[in-house]
Amino acid sequence: MSGQKLRFGIIGAGRIGRVHAETLAFRLPETEIAAIGDVSVEAAQAVAARCNIPKVAATAEEILGDPSIDAVLICSPTATHSELIVKAAEAGKHIFCEKPIAFSLEKIDVALAAVQQAGVQLQIGFNRRFDSNFARVRQAVVNGEVGVPRLLHIISRDPAPPPIAYIRSSGGIFLDMTIHDFDMARFLMGDEVEEIYTAAGVMIDPAIGEARDLDTALIVLRFRSGAIGTIDNSRQAAYGYDQRAEILGSKGKIATENRFPNEAIVSTGKSIYTDLPLNFFMDRYTESFALELKAFTEAVLAGKPTPVTGIDGRIPVVMALAARKSYDEHRPVLLREVSA
Amino acid sequence: MSGQKLRFGIIGAGRIGRVHAETLAFRLPETEIAAIGDVSVEAAQAVAARCNIPKVAATAEEILGDPSIDAVLICSPTATHSELIVKAAEAGKHIFCEKPIAFSLEKIDVALAAVQQAGVQLQIGFNRRFDSNFARVRQAVVNGEVGVPRLLHIISRDPAPPPIAYIRSSGGIFLDMTIHDFDMARFLMGDEVEEIYTAAGVMIDPAIGEARDLDTALIVLRFRSGAIGTIDNSRQAAYGYDQRAEILGSKGKIATENRFPNEAIVSTGKSIYTDLPLNFFMDRYTESFALELKAFTEAVLAGKPTPVTGIDGRIPVVMALAARKSYDEHRPVLLREVSA
Amino acid sequence: MSGQKLRFGIIGAGRIGRVHAETLAFRLPETEIAAIGDVSVEAAQAVAARCNIPKVAATAEEILGDPSIDAVLICSPTATHSELIVKAAEAGKHIFCEKPIAFSLEKIDVALAAVQQAGVQLQIGFNRRFDSNFARVRQAVVNGEVGVPRLLHIISRDPAPPPIAYIRSSGGIFLDMTIHDFDMARFLMGDEVEEIYTAAGVMIDPAIGEARDLDTALIVLRFRSGAIGTIDNSRQAAYGYDQRAEILGSKGKIATENRFPNEAIVSTGKSIYTDLPLNFFMDRYTESFALELKAFTEAVLAGKPTPVTGIDGRIPVVMALAARKSYDEHRPVLLREVSA
Amino acid sequence: MSGQKLRFGIIGAGRIGRVHAETLAFRLPETEIAAIGDVSVEAAQAVAARCNIPKVAATAEEILGDPSIDAVLICSPTATHSELIVKAAEAGKHIFCEKPIAFSLEKIDVALAAVQQAGVQLQIGFNRRFDSNFARVRQAVVNGEVGVPRLLHIISRDPAPPPIAYIRSSGGIFLDMTIHDFDMARFLMGDEVEEIYTAAGVMIDPAIGEARDLDTALIVLRFRSGAIGTIDNSRQAAYGYDQRAEILGSKGKIATENRFPNEAIVSTGKSIYTDLPLNFFMDRYTESFALELKAFTEAVLAGKPTPVTGIDGRIPVVMALAARKSYDEHRPVLLREVSA
Repeated sequence: MSGQKLRFGIIGAGRIGRVHAETLAFRLPETEIAAIGDVSVEAAQAVAARCNIPKVAATAEEILGDPSIDAVLICSPTATHSELIVKAAEAGKHIFCEKPIAFSLEKIDVALAAVQQAGVQLQIGFNRRFDSNFARVRQAVVNGEVGVPRLLHIISRDPAPPPIAYIRSSGGIFLDMTIHDFDMARFLMGDEVEEIYTAAGVMIDPAIGEARDLDTALIVLRFRSGAIGTIDNSRQAAYGYDQRAEILGSKGKIATENRFPNEAIVSTGKSIYTDLPLNFFMDRYTESFALELKAFTEAVLAGKPTPVTGIDGRIPVVMALAARKSYDEHRPVLLREVSA
Repeated sequence: MSGQKLRFGIIGAGRIGRVHAETLAFRLPETEIAAIGDVSVEAAQAVAARCNIPKVAATAEEILGDPSIDAVLICSPTATHSELIVKAAEAGKHIFCEKPIAFSLEKIDVALAAVQQAGVQLQIGFNRRFDSNFARVRQAVVNGEVGVPRLLHIISRDPAPPPIAYIRSSGGIFLDMTIHDFDMARFLMGDEVEEIYTAAGVMIDPAIGEARDLDTALIVLRFRSGAIGTIDNSRQAAYGYDQRAEILGSKGKIATENRFPNEAIVSTGKSIYTDLPLNFFMDRYTESFALELKAFTEAVLAGKPTPVTGIDGRIPVVMALAARKSYDEHRPVLLREVSA
Repeated sequence: MSGQKLRFGIIGAGRIGRVHAETLAFRLPETEIAAIGDVSVEAAQAVAARCNIPKVAATAEEILGDPSIDAVLICSPTATHSELIVKAAEAGKHIFCEKPIAFSLEKIDVALAAVQQAGVQLQIGFNRRFDSNFARVRQAVVNGEVGVPRLLHIISRDPAPPPIAYIRSSGGIFLDMTIHDFDMARFLMGDEVEEIYTAAGVMIDPAIGEARDLDTALIVLRFRSGAIGTIDNSRQAAYGYDQRAEILGSKGKIATENRFPNEAIVSTGKSIYTDLPLNFFMDRYTESFALELKAFTEAVLAGKPTPVTGIDGRIPVVMALAARKSYDEHRPVLLREVSA
Repeated sequence: MSGQKLRFGIIGAGRIGRVHAETLAFRLPETEIAAIGDVSVEAAQAVAARCNIPKVAATAEEILGDPSIDAVLICSPTATHSELIVKAAEAGKHIFCEKPIAFSLEKIDVALAAVQQAGVQLQIGFNRRFDSNFARVRQAVVNGEVGVPRLLHIISRDPAPPPIAYIRSSGGIFLDMTIHDFDMARFLMGDEVEEIYTAAGVMIDPAIGEARDLDTALIVLRFRSGAIGTIDNSRQAAYGYDQRAEILGSKGKIATENRFPNEAIVSTGKSIYTDLPLNFFMDRYTESFALELKAFTEAVLAGKPTPVTGIDGRIPVVMALAARKSYDEHRPVLLREVSA
């Protein structure tokens, strides 16, 4: 470890790469950024200039080969994640990787094996665990404020569907969108899902169906404890980003509302109204992106396990595959049917 | 028709019979009550005294045989409903009958056939359609405020489970409790359900399981339009009666909250808190019980169809049977599997 | 006392007279109405028919002279209240009188003296004490939930100003509208006001100013305990009837919101909105009108003091006079300047 | 101007100095910090290290004498503000100064004259204008969403009183605490106050009274337009920092609620509760501190007037003096009595 600061290399200078770079540069004094690289040199240079990063790397290998670097942030496209994890592990770097690890369990298992063999740490970018609302729900369960969980509801709706080109390479709604909710379900309940049933459809844009994807889904989860729950996904909510959770337990319930740009309420002769909620994930989850990096940094510096491990990255992919299989076969599907 | 007032006979002087008697006596000047009967003469006498009802009938037949009576309220136990509907129809009385009509489709069909043949009017006591919250949800759909419905959520939780003796004769959670929510689903969406999938369990009291019933359930509904939805039922919510609905449509969503005894918020050094919501259906739905009788009276006096017809009473029973079959067979069940 | 039921005569069959008659007839089995009278015989007859009142009296004297009557409801215009109280007291009737007792302290004192001499009971129609929201605020103070009260805010705004003709005979905003809030201030705080300062103006309709009245006011109250508070009055709130209270105490605060016709929230691409609050006092305070009569009936039947006594009727008039004097003289005014 | 970046010197490295330094360093790429100075060299060094500031100045004069510096942030104690403004103006620096400029109008006028003569720009640190809630209230007034303002309420309560030593040197509650609310009143209404009446007391801690200060106050404002309003101040709110505003206008009202750390609601068998609001000004107003510096930077770079000018810094001091005079003389006081 290079002294007291954790030294990072960043692979990928797109939207999320830039957000993470800013967090490291401006909010985490216990870190420093050694280099950033991207297939777009301009993108990498822009982030480097903004965040005072001394070096723009031409390739990922250049970053992985830099012995002064302790940890890498993998913010490149999903298709590259598993291979980069393997290489980074082999180079002895600790790894923070955006979700999902890969679309296939084979690739994930290869990556996780490499991480285990190298003995490095891996954290997956399930940032919502660090959102103050979802963290409060988890806290209520852990504290026993609501007793033993019985019923879970997760509402997760985007303001508008992404471009069809994105949809085509996204891995489908379950791997692209619901995967966050699958992680939330495990995290909030502190329990594992055994079986999934999916009801879904194409209700927003027929082009999504033509791309063999779905845009609206209800996913029923059965947990080991016997608890049951639903995830509600829509690629379009006219009023903006809608991210809520509710747990009913033996002693009560906890439910979260959305976060708004202000708390003003206007009353006129026609209605009582407020502005719309924070519009999309960059606004709603700003703070959680910083907190997940802080947690990663602290875990690595302390030599302790990260709060979102490789297996936490694998299971939601299994759930996504089961959700799709359930939809395709029109029946409840056990997770062990997908991954023995 | 006996002049301008609608003249009622009431069969059953239990809790709901008494509520209906008070509505007719004190809130609907366009009605009068000719007689009330109950297997408990004391119960009938008490209501008669309270509501100035001139006659306590010894039997239902005495009420049905009274030519001065235009309409009957059937508030007796479910097991008697279908037979009483048949007799009342044959006697030429208009009929307001509490839900459900019966636990079996055969009995329901006999009752509905008798009603049709007699040409009398029938209204089923799905009072929640007249609750200001659910009526507002329906209005938003009809007005197009939320566009084309895509996703529905109904939350319907009781404060505490009924006695096991009640559970045993209730017909099961789907016929006893969810039946209201099945009606709500059809009413709010203005659409018919084609298929049901049920995830459920015994989480509150093993004795409920020993009575071969369930106490916690998630029911997924697929509508003809392609829309999908869930019903969330629990026999126990520590914080009281929880009755909410939410519809996501192409233009937005409408969601309802519970009704509270007051709108006071207390802020202390520990938390910001309110009192619990109105505790159970008699408090929460008080007004809706009066409004459904008003609607029945107006429909009969005007010779127009009632707002909740016999078929509206039959379909939720089909849904309940499908929900149970889905649970038993662990697969999605088409309604037409249960009722061709 | 005529047996176990309290026998009422009602003087005045206007809006509030009718509301009280319906409460007695349909909701309070421990009461009966012997007669009702009004200068408009038609109005009295209509209420009598609706509420099964056996007799329409030609004059107030006819009611006061009926030995079978235990108590009178004085629902006639304010100008007649004090004289009717005196006569009713002399006739040995218990008295429920609408607010205010009179516009002058002399008349009030004559009335209260007559009541005291006759030993009958008197309750003034400050119904808001029985509203579930304000009752909850009082309860929080009594329970010590918010500690020792320090700051009070009462917001009390009408949807729209009354006709100018009404304004002219109303006694002015402080005696007509604020008087309820003066009562609330004493009731909620459990404390007496010593001094008042008024800032006010004509902001809604110049015709109100031409009638020598005000339409918008802020009244600062200084209590004996040292606590301070404000009353905010407006004759016009575009969004409807606005009735709220807030107390800050040493341990926290309690604040109430308005009551709405439903708890539905609509979210669209433009805003998140609800319907407007219950529009005016008949909707908002329906239940409180029934509860105040119940409390009066119980107090009289039990021979205990009523919850809103004659002195509770007098003090708000003193406060109203002080508020106007403060406005006229542009300075804080002690209550003892107005009433020694 | 030194190129495209605005070059700052910071005088004062206490709590607010550090917050401003971080904003400049990490959030405003169009700025750079040349130097920071504080009577505590350690404090200045700590901020310099955190924010990569190249120089720690021994004295304010060293900063004011640096020709490479365009603008100064005055974050030192109030007693030094006016003199530093004069010196900075004479040195040709643009000035951002924390509130209040001074406790005496004489000192303020000297400072403002120096600013005017030098032709530099001055912005006063009334950060709440940049808070999303208060900005939304102002926007509603400007947009005409609530029509012509008639009534204003500002609630501004601290979680707990400061140490008595602070109280003694604070200038009193009106100059220390209410001064923000005086600014808010002018800002939200877009109107000037003509007259003030103060009701206040010592209710929290007798030691505050012994220090000749007050801890609880209601201040009535009369605006030029005829509108009226109140400010509610308490040095202690058990539930935390309470910062709200409400305006009633001819077309409606706008009211703001507090901001909370999360939007979770827990329902148990005892109550429905949330966590407490964000606890104090550093949490509640974080974003506004950044936005005010951004606005200052943009104004200076564009050569346009700042959004909170010297006169905006002077008027709240006049209001504070009038508020105290009103309390002392127990009468409404015109602002022109205090400052001709």
